[in-house]
Amino acid sequence: MDEGGLTLHTDKYQINMMYAHWVQGTLNERAVFEIYFRKLPFGNGYAVCAGLDRIVRYIEALRFGERELEYLRQQEENYAPGFLEALRSFRFTGSLHAMPEGTLAFPNEPLVRVEARLFEAHLIETAMLNFLNYQTLIATKASRIRQVAPNDLLLEFGTRRAQEADAAVWGARAAYVAGFHATSNMRAGMLFGIPSKGTHAHAWVQAFGTEEEAFRKYAEALPDQVTLLVDTYDTLRSGVPNAIRIGKMLEASGKRMVGIRLDSGDLAYLSQRARDMLDEAGLSYVKITASNDLDEHIIDNLKSQRARIDVWGVGTKLITAADQPSLGGVYKMVAISRNGAFEPVIKISANPEKVTTPGLKDVYRIIGRDTGKAEGDYIALKDEADIREGRRIKLFDPVHPYIHKYIERYDAVPLLKPVIVDGELAVPLPSLEEIRAYHDAQLGQFWPQYLRKLNPELYRVNLSEKAWKLKMDLIAEHTQNDPL
Amino acid sequence: MDEGGLTLHTDKYQINMMYAHWVQGTLNERAVFEIYFRKLPFGNGYAVCAGLDRIVRYIEALRFGERELEYLRQQEENYAPGFLEALRSFRFTGSLHAMPEGTLAFPNEPLVRVEARLFEAHLIETAMLNFLNYQTLIATKASRIRQVAPNDLLLEFGTRRAQEADAAVWGARAAYVAGFHATSNMRAGMLFGIPSKGTHAHAWVQAFGTEEEAFRKYAEALPDQVTLLVDTYDTLRSGVPNAIRIGKMLEASGKRMVGIRLDSGDLAYLSQRARDMLDEAGLSYVKITASNDLDEHIIDNLKSQRARIDVWGVGTKLITAADQPSLGGVYKMVAISRNGAFEPVIKISANPEKVTTPGLKDVYRIIGRDTGKAEGDYIALKDEADIREGRRIKLFDPVHPYIHKYIERYDAVPLLKPVIVDGELAVPLPSLEEIRAYHDAQLGQFWPQYLRKLNPELYRVNLSEKAWKLKMDLIAEHTQNDPL
Repeated sequence: MDEGGLTLHTDKYQINMMYAHWVQGTLNERAVFEIYFRKLPFGNGYAVCAGLDRIVRYIEALRFGERELEYLRQQEENYAPGFLEALRSFRFTGSLHAMPEGTLAFPNEPLVRVEARLFEAHLIETAMLNFLNYQTLIATKASRIRQVAPNDLLLEFGTRRAQEADAAVWGARAAYVAGFHATSNMRAGMLFGIPSKGTHAHAWVQAFGTEEEAFRKYAEALPDQVTLLVDTYDTLRSGVPNAIRIGKMLEASGKRMVGIRLDSGDLAYLSQRARDMLDEAGLSYVKITASNDLDEHIIDNLKSQRARIDVWGVGTKLITAADQPSLGGVYKMVAISRNGAFEPVIKISANPEKVTTPGLKDVYRIIGRDTGKAEGDYIALKDEADIREGRRIKLFDPVHPYIHKYIERYDAVPLLKPVIVDGELAVPLPSLEEIRAYHDAQLGQFWPQYLRKLNPELYRVNLSEKAWKLKMDLIAEHTQNDPL
Repeated sequence: MDEGGLTLHTDKYQINMMYAHWVQGTLNERAVFEIYFRKLPFGNGYAVCAGLDRIVRYIEALRFGERELEYLRQQEENYAPGFLEALRSFRFTGSLHAMPEGTLAFPNEPLVRVEARLFEAHLIETAMLNFLNYQTLIATKASRIRQVAPNDLLLEFGTRRAQEADAAVWGARAAYVAGFHATSNMRAGMLFGIPSKGTHAHAWVQAFGTEEEAFRKYAEALPDQVTLLVDTYDTLRSGVPNAIRIGKMLEASGKRMVGIRLDSGDLAYLSQRARDMLDEAGLSYVKITASNDLDEHIIDNLKSQRARIDVWGVGTKLITAADQPSLGGVYKMVAISRNGAFEPVIKISANPEKVTTPGLKDVYRIIGRDTGKAEGDYIALKDEADIREGRRIKLFDPVHPYIHKYIERYDAVPLLKPVIVDGELAVPLPSLEEIRAYHDAQLGQFWPQYLRKLNPELYRVNLSEKAWKLKMDLIAEHTQNDPL
């Protein structure tokens, strides 16, 4: 099946919005939209941005071809032919500012800001959220796992349980952004240059008369890459002793076995016993890999039980973000061009946390000059002078304004960088290795209390006084203007 | 980015298995593998098979092109050039029997049976599980939602929170298989012919001076498809009254408004009040659509509160199967060719439920002649005569053999149908509409107690006495043969 491009990877209501704006002649009005999420996943103290590379390539490839137009022609909406002609020449001509992949992000701050014609801004919402929500979710989950095993090798092993093919490859990439070392997925390796790793299957062992024969045949075939799966029949009575025989056989030919892999049973106990057996046989260099429904909680618990595991193969619970399989990122209009200037707009809700923060805004990370550490994020209207020029600013809690402090002696790092400007790529996209290095530098800017897995300290995200006042004014305006 | 084909959508250890069999000259030995799951998701009483269409198209397209070979050439395994040449001419030549999409399936019975050369059987494991696990999971989730709203219109709205692009389209298809009526995802509509549906965005309302103006402009553009989103500012004080004005305006021009959509707040209360307001205005034909983190539990609860909702837009919790985001389907070798005949093989585990059931097997659905209803599923070794010829069979509980019964006067429907035979498609794949009709017929074969959402009755899946004895014999053989 030809799956074609991703131009129609969008909700129908976006096409209907494009159509209605086309009918009403408002398609070229410019608007500003922001992507943000309201709540951190997994009780984590931060999220790790991922998905921007995918978004940029998607936007660059947006075209309505014959197949898409033919499909649209058949819809019950009965779109006018002139609309379909307008789609035929569709190109994205807007601008996109975004936090680079690997940035640590927090609730209610824009991760992406889009300035574009309404015609374009509607089309891209669905796909952008789809990419950013998933990849940021997985990068964040991977980061939690790394927090509990910072010195171990972390392998992404989730393809068989991933939510279809794209999740497998983009999830592998997101995990790599956050510090995983390799993936089992070969296509992810090929597409992104992520190192790929693998051991062997239970079926390999079953294909031979005995486990020892199977191990020997495998070692003959791949003598430099021997990691033996030892749980097909009985880990300690059969698997490990057979693996040790192979390890000694490899030594006799001047090779070294890489490792053994435990894939079931009591991983704490089995790893300790296997470690002892390997050490007693003089194979202390042989690494122990473990897998089997692992996540940050189980790894943490195994470590507290003094499990002797060097390499973690993490599958299902990482690639599906099993304890919270979606990030609720949203895309909201914050300003629209009226009479040549952007006017802020708001969406009210009976749920206060769903009220949007109006206006064209920037996000700054406040880095203390004395500590080099992040003291909070500051959301200001575009081009507010105090923050841009490093003057004293006031951080305050909008619900309890008596909680406030003034800060100075800081560097304000703007987090939203130009990515696409007037339809053109503003700067080359960073390589995956550059993203990983940047992510590590990001982590280094945060005090450990924000990074811990359990009950992290709440990182401050503050609105400037101007941004806060604008929001209050618009709420007042809309709640007074109610028609009934 | 060119994402290429899915041939390398596999775990590295599968490639290593292929390589090691190639090195050892065992690549052409034939084996039998089965896909099954051990536990039903969501506490449901059944699963709905989905994913087979995707599997077949994937297998038909399997080719190692230059890009794949070049990537494999760079691997640390240092594969021999002859292996890469063998891959260049790779074609799937094996056979695949499977339950058709839409079949109701149960734990520990084969959903797919693969007979193939080891070289081929290893390659396809990962992708098959990836497709079948996800799509079966989503079809099952969708089926639960349908159980609580059997007479309402069900729309899949999940793309923005789906786990990347493939999940959005294949999840939409899986939901449609299980009885959903439409999707918001246009690409799923284009690829699979699923009806696509959409309303309008909050941003549409924000783009105009007032909500009423926005509604009017939308109704002008799409007068036959007017469903108005009424919660941008205040549902009951602004949204519904404005929608009613538009409904009357449409009536004046001989049109009828389709509906309103509630997307936040107390859906039970708001839908009742909105229904009253619409009815009082003479707009009783206007439907109420609801969305906002719905699932089968919330819909059931809203119904018990007498919510007046006609159409359900179900997003995040369906498309991610939020309460259990993976199905644990596995792929296990059950037989291997030795001296020209298939010999059964087993995998032992310290966890009894992880011990495989050896041998080449078939699955039959036992349909009572008097009731027309499914009485249980029966797993027998291939070509066991009693079941094939409809003679009296014994159903028994292997853990408590005193629990048993004999049954006769039944039809035994083989569930594993030939799909690919010797590398060729055995019969044309059914259309999506045929699959939906088949699925409905499947549901009709089951007593309601197996289909209910909460605490369903346990449906019997029994091994034949021969299959059970074979398993016991192989367990005994392997546990006695332990080398220590």
